[in-house]
Amino acid sequence: MAEKRFIIKKEDTQTLARVGKMRTAHGIFNTPAFMPVGTRATVKTCTPHELKGIGAEIILSNTYHLYLRPGHDIVKQAGGLHKFMCWKGPILTDSGGYQVYSLSPLRSISEEGVSFRSQIDGRKHFISPEKAIEIQNALGADIIMIFDECTPYPSDYEYAKNSMELTLRWAERCKKAHKNPHQLLFGITQGCVYKDLRKKSVEATVALDFPGYAVGGISVGENKELTYEILAYTTPLLPKEKPRYLMGVGRPEDIVYGVSCGIDMFDCVLPTRNARNGAMFTSSGIVKIRNAKYKTDFTPLDPNCNCYTCQNFTRAYLRHLHIENEILAHRLHTLHNLYFYLNLMRGIRQAILNNTFAKLKDDINALVSLGALNSPDGTKQRL
Amino acid sequence: MAEKRFIIKKEDTQTLARVGKMRTAHGIFNTPAFMPVGTRATVKTCTPHELKGIGAEIILSNTYHLYLRPGHDIVKQAGGLHKFMCWKGPILTDSGGYQVYSLSPLRSISEEGVSFRSQIDGRKHFISPEKAIEIQNALGADIIMIFDECTPYPSDYEYAKNSMELTLRWAERCKKAHKNPHQLLFGITQGCVYKDLRKKSVEATVALDFPGYAVGGISVGENKELTYEILAYTTPLLPKEKPRYLMGVGRPEDIVYGVSCGIDMFDCVLPTRNARNGAMFTSSGIVKIRNAKYKTDFTPLDPNCNCYTCQNFTRAYLRHLHIENEILAHRLHTLHNLYFYLNLMRGIRQAILNNTFAKLKDDINALVSLGALNSPDGTKQRL
Repeated sequence: MAEKRFIIKKEDTQTLARVGKMRTAHGIFNTPAFMPVGTRATVKTCTPHELKGIGAEIILSNTYHLYLRPGHDIVKQAGGLHKFMCWKGPILTDSGGYQVYSLSPLRSISEEGVSFRSQIDGRKHFISPEKAIEIQNALGADIIMIFDECTPYPSDYEYAKNSMELTLRWAERCKKAHKNPHQLLFGITQGCVYKDLRKKSVEATVALDFPGYAVGGISVGENKELTYEILAYTTPLLPKEKPRYLMGVGRPEDIVYGVSCGIDMFDCVLPTRNARNGAMFTSSGIVKIRNAKYKTDFTPLDPNCNCYTCQNFTRAYLRHLHIENEILAHRLHTLHNLYFYLNLMRGIRQAILNNTFAKLKDDINALVSLGALNSPDGTKQRL
Repeated sequence: MAEKRFIIKKEDTQTLARVGKMRTAHGIFNTPAFMPVGTRATVKTCTPHELKGIGAEIILSNTYHLYLRPGHDIVKQAGGLHKFMCWKGPILTDSGGYQVYSLSPLRSISEEGVSFRSQIDGRKHFISPEKAIEIQNALGADIIMIFDECTPYPSDYEYAKNSMELTLRWAERCKKAHKNPHQLLFGITQGCVYKDLRKKSVEATVALDFPGYAVGGISVGENKELTYEILAYTTPLLPKEKPRYLMGVGRPEDIVYGVSCGIDMFDCVLPTRNARNGAMFTSSGIVKIRNAKYKTDFTPLDPNCNCYTCQNFTRAYLRHLHIENEILAHRLHTLHNLYFYLNLMRGIRQAILNNTFAKLKDDINALVSLGALNSPDGTKQRL
């Protein structure tokens, strides 16, 4: 019998956290994993070699963006996404479902699929579940996602129910359309904040038998307590022996919380986007480098960090580069923030192996309650 | 006796080109040298380690920009420019003379110095020759420049004469003001396109005895033949045993021409600026990556190039990144263009050592006459 695709090496004794590894056509990644976001076949500002150097084992790219530009046909001609962008490790592409809804203003959803206008030139496009698979087959990522309707939050029960059921029917069509055995097609569960819908979505999606499952439509924004409750409810419903992916989440404390619920994979634009806005994650909280107090601060961004940025440059220099809008600022900040996230994941995995994950979770929560991990927009986030 | 500061290792037999090495407080650089431009204490998009990796031995930074932001006092507090930007090799700062004229609209020149308004916030500033030296002393570059009036082209004879004489008086004041023996203060000669003024400027500047001399006010734009003639006339007037620096020049063929006249040092924003505009220097001419024909061109930017960009990525991918205005495009293009320039300098030095410099010059001219090195704005440049 072939080696198992997903192996759980250790389960936490106090939470549902687990450490594992996942095998793909382009190698193995360790879980819990954070996937840096490379929307347009580039993790913004980074070379693939830098990503590897800071410990990224899998990255994410976007079907919607690559479909519009340069076009999946061109990526296919290039020999697939790995060759196109020169990343030799595992890649996951999301299906474009989320982007179609969030980026295309004039969309309309039918049973058949979604028609929308390009955000680039206004041209009309139509993506069906079958088309989403065709595009993802052309891109050639190791893990691909079913085409879903990402149910908006808030949604009333009726909308959420219909939307979840549509996603189920699309999941079935995606599975039928997908033929390439080297690409793992993951299911996506929906159901908004309604537990019975979440349960039904999980049961029906799992019945279709995918090699991994995502919890979709979770946005840790407006109502964090409710969202956390839904996440804690939904995740353990998913089969234990398959990887679980929490899409688009989140801040360090959200990731730690997700891991404690049994999530194995995360992606989020936060580290890369915050970096370009000059908000950096450090061991003592968020540093907003624009702050005048850093003008003559000749210490590293984070004295406890081993990243290239912290080993070589001072806050005063980083502030100068940021104020001048120099590209090097975006580079050094991105490298640091991604290193922080990837290092957090290493710490999480090690903590689970050492039976110290609960302490790690407490430490993060302590930082948050001190206000040190306030989100960059200034609103205080509670766990 | 201490080792000589500037050593000429070999002189070309057919031209005035020479290979040498220059010793500074932060190490040696080989000549003819190209200095990547790091206006705001960063060579745009590059880390200092990348610059070292592609063979940069000395870089240039700008007094004017650093005086306005972050302020030379802050750079001094950081331990000087080398520490501030984490570049351990030689640095040259220009005096700000050129930038005061080209970037500050409301300037007024007097015998005492120049008053101008900041391009950033409109605040009034005054820079005298003494102030320019004070700023450069605080920045701590290995080679610093006298504060000159960069005579505009075209200028009538009277203006050019007065301007050149003002620069001479300022040179004397700069020399008096400069006290730090670890920083080498270079003189700048002017005289516009008037040979007698050029000659007088050289003689009087050399009489002040600087450890190196620049040819200033040379802009290979409007009238290239005349400019080349002035350069060929002026350069050999400068003392043979001192390094000669042609400020702000130029394209590859201009650099080769300058070397043939006896120039040892060059700086120019062309490789870095063109890179960000998507115009790349290659062994077969300029590649404008935006061109639609590169959409499905899965070959390297320059198949004969050993830079990171050409070793790892295709034209199709670079075009995609450039069209999307991705920072990685600017990075990869800058790295390539700087590598091209630094490699050109290595080739020039080797050719002089091998007595093949004349052939190298012919090869470059052949490329130019084929139109392959047309400047990115599309105008054909002749040698």
